Amino acid sequence: MTPKTSINKLKNFEGQEVSLSGWVYQFRSSGKISFLVLRDGTGDCQCVFTEGTADSKSLEAFSKLSLETAVEVRGQVKKWKDSYELKGQDLKILFSAEPWPLGKKSHGVDFLMSHRHLWLRSKKQRAIMNVRNELIQNIHHFFQKEEFLHIDAPILAANACEGTSSLFSVNFFDQEPAYLSQSGQMYMEAAAAAYGKVYCFGPTFRAEKSSTRRHLLEFWMIEPEMAFCNLEEAMELAERFVEYVVQNTLQTKTEELKVLERNLDFLRETRAPFPRLSYKTACEVIQKSNPDFQPGGDFGGGEETLISSQYKKPVFVHHYPKDIKAFYMKEDEENPSLSLSFDLLATDGYGELIGGGQREDSLEKLEEGIREHHLKKEDFEWYLDLRRFGSFTHSGFGLGLERLVAWVCGLDHVRETIPFPRVYGRSFFEKSSSS
Amino acid sequence: MTPKTSINKLKNFEGQEVSLSGWVYQFRSSGKISFLVLRDGTGDCQCVFTEGTADSKSLEAFSKLSLETAVEVRGQVKKWKDSYELKGQDLKILFSAEPWPLGKKSHGVDFLMSHRHLWLRSKKQRAIMNVRNELIQNIHHFFQKEEFLHIDAPILAANACEGTSSLFSVNFFDQEPAYLSQSGQMYMEAAAAAYGKVYCFGPTFRAEKSSTRRHLLEFWMIEPEMAFCNLEEAMELAERFVEYVVQNTLQTKTEELKVLERNLDFLRETRAPFPRLSYKTACEVIQKSNPDFQPGGDFGGGEETLISSQYKKPVFVHHYPKDIKAFYMKEDEENPSLSLSFDLLATDGYGELIGGGQREDSLEKLEEGIREHHLKKEDFEWYLDLRRFGSFTHSGFGLGLERLVAWVCGLDHVRETIPFPRVYGRSFFEKSSSS
Repeated sequence: MTPKTSINKLKNFEGQEVSLSGWVYQFRSSGKISFLVLRDGTGDCQCVFTEGTADSKSLEAFSKLSLETAVEVRGQVKKWKDSYELKGQDLKILFSAEPWPLGKKSHGVDFLMSHRHLWLRSKKQRAIMNVRNELIQNIHHFFQKEEFLHIDAPILAANACEGTSSLFSVNFFDQEPAYLSQSGQMYMEAAAAAYGKVYCFGPTFRAEKSSTRRHLLEFWMIEPEMAFCNLEEAMELAERFVEYVVQNTLQTKTEELKVLERNLDFLRETRAPFPRLSYKTACEVIQKSNPDFQPGGDFGGGEETLISSQYKKPVFVHHYPKDIKAFYMKEDEENPSLSLSFDLLATDGYGELIGGGQREDSLEKLEEGIREHHLKKEDFEWYLDLRRFGSFTHSGFGLGLERLVAWVCGLDHVRETIPFPRVYGRSFFEKSSSS
Repeated sequence: MTPKTSINKLKNFEGQEVSLSGWVYQFRSSGKISFLVLRDGTGDCQCVFTEGTADSKSLEAFSKLSLETAVEVRGQVKKWKDSYELKGQDLKILFSAEPWPLGKKSHGVDFLMSHRHLWLRSKKQRAIMNVRNELIQNIHHFFQKEEFLHIDAPILAANACEGTSSLFSVNFFDQEPAYLSQSGQMYMEAAAAAYGKVYCFGPTFRAEKSSTRRHLLEFWMIEPEMAFCNLEEAMELAERFVEYVVQNTLQTKTEELKVLERNLDFLRETRAPFPRLSYKTACEVIQKSNPDFQPGGDFGGGEETLISSQYKKPVFVHHYPKDIKAFYMKEDEENPSLSLSFDLLATDGYGELIGGGQREDSLEKLEEGIREHHLKKEDFEWYLDLRRFGSFTHSGFGLGLERLVAWVCGLDHVRETIPFPRVYGRSFFEKSSSS
């Protein structure tokens, strides 16, 4: 019996007859010779049918092909340049396809987005999803190697970690509403008090009415939290982490990054240690190009790019003003107007990759921060418990998976970095072209 | 300088002086000798202080200890039976703890649940979370080894996969509500058409007003979906998968399973192939013990136990009646009253671990199913596209992570299988004992 295999395994069958199942990606006939490019999820394979080798039934099937029709091809594996093709002997249509709506003409983004369930089949999207898969695995490998425990944060939560204005509320059995988590950080702090080094990796939500190239309503975050770890040690972990996932992904996903035409220069340079700038120094760097810049606030995208363009690898900015950071950031004892916080800015103008810092460990300071930020103390009582019952020096950070994917793949917009993006400003549901 | 280390690394420092940071798990003094059990997330370590070796400042610090106080201990590493202890030289209190609310007296479940952020520190919960972490990693390893692509399903969705009665609705910018995903399956079918073999691993939600030992409102599901794969091949994958994650976890988490006093007999027997019973045969098995049982419906917990107790390893039941399965299950061509579906039942009465089957690939049959199940066709138009544009034989299944953790750990209730459980029938928010 002819062995069934997949396109990425053809090299093991050179000269032999195999059977492949997949979908028609391209096809054309020129006289006595017909070409079909088959895709099966593992790769693309050209299948060549000639009157001499293929039977008449197969040639008739060929004449009925349409894009994305599911077929089974039997043929002999032949090496062709750097890849393998099939000398087609038999072609069987499994399921015919209606005219493919994502054909040759160039579609607008809205059309592609609402046909995401079909758009995923394109070569570019396949490359992105392969890089995303590899980054996800490397993220787990890194933290497991460093003996972190994966601890899932809850999605249904009672309080806001990052401000209340961008919360999605959930109807919770017609009782008080619950909210979709904006961050797992506070839960990770509880887990770090139990297990030392932990990380969560799950979806988080921001109901922000912004449709920029860097915002999704639903995105995946990796949030490590480390007990007995200070600001400097957290930055050291962050640079080791980014180096690990980037370098490993560069090594294994060269083909995909070629499809994406990614310039790899800066990614190759992404090796620890990364440069470190205090917020103060970073402001001076900005002022050299933009003398009107007023220090004291958070950086916008343009300012981030001014800073990061000075370097060939990601750069840390640390010690931001206390006022512009969350209430749980630890105050700098040497300068109480500053916080023990840091951001990591990517190269190529991709902006903030990571935000993090050392957490306030004093119960009194934390209560003060909750007051100053006009938050409801009762929502945070359980979180304050972590300072009541054995407080501890601890730090952590958050990295948004989609921004990492965008940076590594060199994409203009985060909407292509996630299989099924949820973006503000358009109905986010998948649509059929026939409805 | 004294090297800082963690408790699981003490074996590398026998005879040397080290420094450990952690929390006071137990302590007692008897005359001239004082004992402290330190926990740091990586393990527990006994530290012994005597007047001869520890200075008076340390002995004074000892007199001020309370449970969960954060401390730094310096001392010499000594082997003691199968583990290591510290001959304490220096004890420093980092942060004192208020009286520990989860002290010696036995607490009710409600109290423990609302103090989950502290309860996680107990030895039993630590063992469970370590097993959970290991299962999660083995799940990724298995699917990556089998060349699946990890594809995240969206959480915000427009339609229900498993019936509309148990949907959580989300306020979506005051427009039409969105719903929290009950399953990523349909999205995985779209991804399987693009990439062949895919899996998602994310949180799913069921707004069910049931507070049984097997229900959570929020739980994590693993859902693989395979193109060009039929019912039998899906069952073969499922048994290989369960064998892999169970055997690997047994090998590496022996200590934790000992803490949990898990009887490992059935888990050790969990090796492919698993027995296979048709629904019809399974009904006959039940009727032997319960002659009143009427075939035709789904099995309850008691019936599942009657079936699984016949075997020392998990058992498949397949070919359930079409009526009691979801509309997307493929009809059995040989007997149209049956579906190409399967469940995998765990040993020890743990019930359904996996549910899955072959998906309906005919556009007409699927439209018929949507009508018969009184679902809104417009919600599923995008899903129907997967049959319009190159339909394909495909199968998949779903495994609930928390049921897997409960079974492997031998737990009575799923509420202890997830770091921060969301359960019906109690306010699910973490509470402080001082609020």
